[in-house]
Amino acid sequence: MNIGFIGLGVMGASMAGHLLAAGHRLGITTRTASKAQGLLDQGAHWYPTPAALVTDCEVVFTIVGYPQDVEAVYFGSDGLMSALQAGQILVDMTTSSPELAIRIATATEERLALALDAPVSGGDKGAREAALSIMVGGDAKAFETIKPLFDLMGKNIVYQGPAGSGQHCKLCNQIAIASNMLGVCEALAYAKRSGLDPHLVLSSISTGAAGSWSLSNLAPRILDGDFEPGFFIKHFIKDMKLAVESAQSLGFDAPGLSLALKQYQSAAQQGLENAGTQALFRVYTKQED
Amino acid sequence: MNIGFIGLGVMGASMAGHLLAAGHRLGITTRTASKAQGLLDQGAHWYPTPAALVTDCEVVFTIVGYPQDVEAVYFGSDGLMSALQAGQILVDMTTSSPELAIRIATATEERLALALDAPVSGGDKGAREAALSIMVGGDAKAFETIKPLFDLMGKNIVYQGPAGSGQHCKLCNQIAIASNMLGVCEALAYAKRSGLDPHLVLSSISTGAAGSWSLSNLAPRILDGDFEPGFFIKHFIKDMKLAVESAQSLGFDAPGLSLALKQYQSAAQQGLENAGTQALFRVYTKQED
Repeated sequence: MNIGFIGLGVMGASMAGHLLAAGHRLGITTRTASKAQGLLDQGAHWYPTPAALVTDCEVVFTIVGYPQDVEAVYFGSDGLMSALQAGQILVDMTTSSPELAIRIATATEERLALALDAPVSGGDKGAREAALSIMVGGDAKAFETIKPLFDLMGKNIVYQGPAGSGQHCKLCNQIAIASNMLGVCEALAYAKRSGLDPHLVLSSISTGAAGSWSLSNLAPRILDGDFEPGFFIKHFIKDMKLAVESAQSLGFDAPGLSLALKQYQSAAQQGLENAGTQALFRVYTKQED
Repeated sequence: MNIGFIGLGVMGASMAGHLLAAGHRLGITTRTASKAQGLLDQGAHWYPTPAALVTDCEVVFTIVGYPQDVEAVYFGSDGLMSALQAGQILVDMTTSSPELAIRIATATEERLALALDAPVSGGDKGAREAALSIMVGGDAKAFETIKPLFDLMGKNIVYQGPAGSGQHCKLCNQIAIASNMLGVCEALAYAKRSGLDPHLVLSSISTGAAGSWSLSNLAPRILDGDFEPGFFIKHFIKDMKLAVESAQSLGFDAPGLSLALKQYQSAAQQGLENAGTQALFRVYTKQED
């Protein structure tokens, strides 16, 4: 297929690379030229704007940073909507707001085109290894068309429902992680404070009812003093804000989520916004200094 | 060995049964005679009081409900301490306060005997299948002596350090679970509120970074409307209170734990104290009715 890809960050570059490697024609546009070079060397085609890109494509994938970036790529001057034609498919894989996903779907349908919201989880590693979980909302027929392309990027690909459903599902994912990170960090900090060897504590509690991906994968990094980002605190704060806003608009109160956002904002205020989410631990250990 | 066992609840009865089945002499005492019958039929010996029981034993295990029950069994008139002799070993497997574990150890040592605090996780199922995680604090030599008996009851047996360390470790376990349950219930409630199919959401999020024992094991029960107790809310509230008190005495602030306790107390106020911990979900869905 003729595929466009916008957003060649650490994850996007890997994902676009898988599409290109599978033999598809790949068009790209980036604000930062250097980010494109690797893919151009492998045969990708450069376009100056999203509008120019979409003209040559059957489907365009986007995975950018913040909802305002999505807004600019889709609705800005020279954005995707300005040149969208009937039958084309737009797939936003950014973690963004369900409301914006619905606005994109509505605007797309008005142009007789189709949209999907398809945020992912799995991080850099999942993108590199084509092992992402992809949560898909939007037009069901568009999902069937795009499914073989998702298969090139991910492993656990689930159609969740109409436009916005992919984003809602991703927010569920972040809500579950948010409170669990409080538990992981508080358990480790309590272990240290009470004089236990936290490595021994992990060997007792990691495999039972307290077990979680975060406890198995992030807690050992915390104990090694490794706060390098797998997932940036600043991006997690963005996601939790989206979840809080969406919950509010649904009239739903999620106090664990709100508390986690508050604790992560404290971490950001301590200068940890570019650290990994496991650096939340430092908010708790600061008390001990 | 000559073993005593006090506390023949759902877990204790299984654990004592494993000791008896391995060929040890088992002495028991219960307040409720009916709870003893199964073990008496298998050859256990009945004693009227803890004091009478300890006289015939090399080691006595206890696993009772609340710290005040531990206090009564150890320090009450006709309690274990009243008849304890040099060289005997007392092992409290109740989830109780680290401070009480230290008091028991001190009183035991004054009588030239030895004590361990060895709370467990794994629930009814872990007790039945001899697959408990056992977190042990107290005298290291006593641990070596008792280890073969722990092996009859559990699989993941870790010596955590001096008296109270087993209890501290168990509180770490409960701290990690407490906040995670907020995340699990909030994610599922958000899924329902936003119109998603929560079963589909689980298939997207259970195996990735949001994954946890609770999400894999309790969330499906929530969606089936199964709020039967694997672990009672009233007992989890007890454990979280112990953790909050212990954290306070260490000068450590654990806001996720405090919030989880508050939410579970709301559940208890709704009449859910004898439901399983997954019934926390109802605190969130009540809003939706």
